[in-house]
Amino acid sequence: MEGVSGIMDTIAPGVRPGSDTSHLALLGYDPHEYYTGRGPFEAAGVGIPVQTGDIAFRVNFATLKDNTVVDRRAGRIRDTTQLAEAIQEQVDLPVEFIFKRSTGHRAALVLRGEDLSADVSPTDPKHEDLPLKRSHATQEGGERTAGILNEFTRQAQRILEDHALNQERQKQGELPANTVLARGAGEVPHIPSMEDKYGLKGAVVAAAGLIIGIGRMVGMDYVETPGATGGVDSNVEGKVENALAALETHDLVLLNVKGADEAGHDGKWPEKKKFLERVDRALSPVVDRLDDTIVVVCSDHSTPVSIMDHSADPVPLVIAGPGVRTDDVDEFSESMVAGGDLGRLRGMDVMPIVMDLIDRAKKFGA
Amino acid sequence: MEGVSGIMDTIAPGVRPGSDTSHLALLGYDPHEYYTGRGPFEAAGVGIPVQTGDIAFRVNFATLKDNTVVDRRAGRIRDTTQLAEAIQEQVDLPVEFIFKRSTGHRAALVLRGEDLSADVSPTDPKHEDLPLKRSHATQEGGERTAGILNEFTRQAQRILEDHALNQERQKQGELPANTVLARGAGEVPHIPSMEDKYGLKGAVVAAAGLIIGIGRMVGMDYVETPGATGGVDSNVEGKVENALAALETHDLVLLNVKGADEAGHDGKWPEKKKFLERVDRALSPVVDRLDDTIVVVCSDHSTPVSIMDHSADPVPLVIAGPGVRTDDVDEFSESMVAGGDLGRLRGMDVMPIVMDLIDRAKKFGA
Repeated sequence: MEGVSGIMDTIAPGVRPGSDTSHLALLGYDPHEYYTGRGPFEAAGVGIPVQTGDIAFRVNFATLKDNTVVDRRAGRIRDTTQLAEAIQEQVDLPVEFIFKRSTGHRAALVLRGEDLSADVSPTDPKHEDLPLKRSHATQEGGERTAGILNEFTRQAQRILEDHALNQERQKQGELPANTVLARGAGEVPHIPSMEDKYGLKGAVVAAAGLIIGIGRMVGMDYVETPGATGGVDSNVEGKVENALAALETHDLVLLNVKGADEAGHDGKWPEKKKFLERVDRALSPVVDRLDDTIVVVCSDHSTPVSIMDHSADPVPLVIAGPGVRTDDVDEFSESMVAGGDLGRLRGMDVMPIVMDLIDRAKKFGA
Repeated sequence: MEGVSGIMDTIAPGVRPGSDTSHLALLGYDPHEYYTGRGPFEAAGVGIPVQTGDIAFRVNFATLKDNTVVDRRAGRIRDTTQLAEAIQEQVDLPVEFIFKRSTGHRAALVLRGEDLSADVSPTDPKHEDLPLKRSHATQEGGERTAGILNEFTRQAQRILEDHALNQERQKQGELPANTVLARGAGEVPHIPSMEDKYGLKGAVVAAAGLIIGIGRMVGMDYVETPGATGGVDSNVEGKVENALAALETHDLVLLNVKGADEAGHDGKWPEKKKFLERVDRALSPVVDRLDDTIVVVCSDHSTPVSIMDHSADPVPLVIAGPGVRTDDVDEFSESMVAGGDLGRLRGMDVMPIVMDLIDRAKKFGA
């Protein structure tokens, strides 16, 4: 096998990475410095042009009955375009806000203005059959923002309750999307772009909003792939094709494939194995580009079917391309690459190594 | 093969080390803390007894014609003793200064006094056929030092222009060394000696001024070796002999051999290979001392002939001596030692390991 391999702790040994924190680290952004909560990255992912200092939330459309959340996904509603537009047009707040729908029941909310804070509790009760929560300050300085979030929720609820689409849903026996639940408050960090940090023009090929958001946040262009779902049924081949095409106009392409993670969360090992075999085949056009491209293949974290969640087990890593040393590992598996010449690295090491390999690293000293 | 091996990032994965920063790390001095530019180490290397707070520069004797630098090495002048002495005697500055020649066209300048700063631009235009530059402050507080450097240059130039040696050179059709170009400004850091830090008396055996300077800066004795050049023609055998002799009177000897680096910079792989084979043979008396000496063999950085400069590729490392574990690696090469029992280390790890092996490490805790 070409290239050099090793095992990697995307954050540090024993730290269970989120997909967001691990991707930040893999792109060379210390998540301890730049990760301020999920809201900002989700908001960027749905295409909101977030700005440093914005307060961002993940939002669910949900069904409320007698002030009790009976369905956190509003009967798995699919198209919320009209609802989101109505909210953006009719809600009136003392600060600027951007509300945008994502896929299914998901959306994002961004508050922009003076004296805002991310130190506010969620309105999302996180479980069903619990009352909608009032947001309150979790630290001094959060009072105003909590008040604005509560006011947003109150107005949005009134708009949704009366909305024709919800009345139609109820006629059809479907649950109305008559409230919004906010969580994951975070202040948009000041984060240098890939261009400023590395002098590289980047593109991101992904289906998950969170990954697209991270890419956008660091100034990467998002390249959409029809049929990309983030699941085991995703158009992996199309994503690979897209990624290679993006390389014609970009210096660096981040290609994220999420199906194995999903199968891991669902505890489905045959699906996971089958999907990984598909990814293996789908990557073959990438291997054909090793004469002029540095290719890094790795996971952002383990998602063992046995625990159905992320674990801190180190992930396999292989780096190949022109000028890269080759070791004698000939199988891409955790146990085989653990004997590879890269040894054990961390996610934050990847970009410096890549910069050295493409001859863009600066010498430290003389 | 005796001993235990591994690969090592002298600074960190993906960081291209200079010889100075990597040697600091290998001696256990964090270069992020102690590396303040090349000037201080070069000045210490030519034997100037630098003090904390001194501002030091690397200097070239050069040839100026109509205020244009026509040769940055003054026709590769060999002996500048008289010129340097004249400058030291006749230049008059508002602060103390030490000017000392090095080999060939090289020299060093140290300014000592109150209110000095290293935040000044070089007078060296770095390329030929460009005018001599005036130094200016690169940060607030550098104005006075820039002015002093410009005044030093003005006076030195007048002295050199009139100097008999230069008039003689011109008669012989050689380029006069009629100006000085300063670069690499740095403030001499407060750096604890090896004796204070480790309780070890050290000696340095090297040819390169930069390495000698680093050794001197941390209080090592410099042991000169006749015929040591820093090139592939160096007296490696003599250096090894010298290093072993120095061990009779010192606790730790740093032996630097530079020929392979030079051949790498020049892109000459047969020379590099041949030189490494010579080093291999020359080290044989060291192997005879493994019964009572801890020996560490490593590189300070890679200098691949393919890129003719330092790269961030990790370097091989072997540690041998009494009480040191032995692994099953029997070849000292990057790919073989990557499978060694040391795994992947950093330069800053070497001295703590050595201190433990010589039983000088303190227990952390009880």
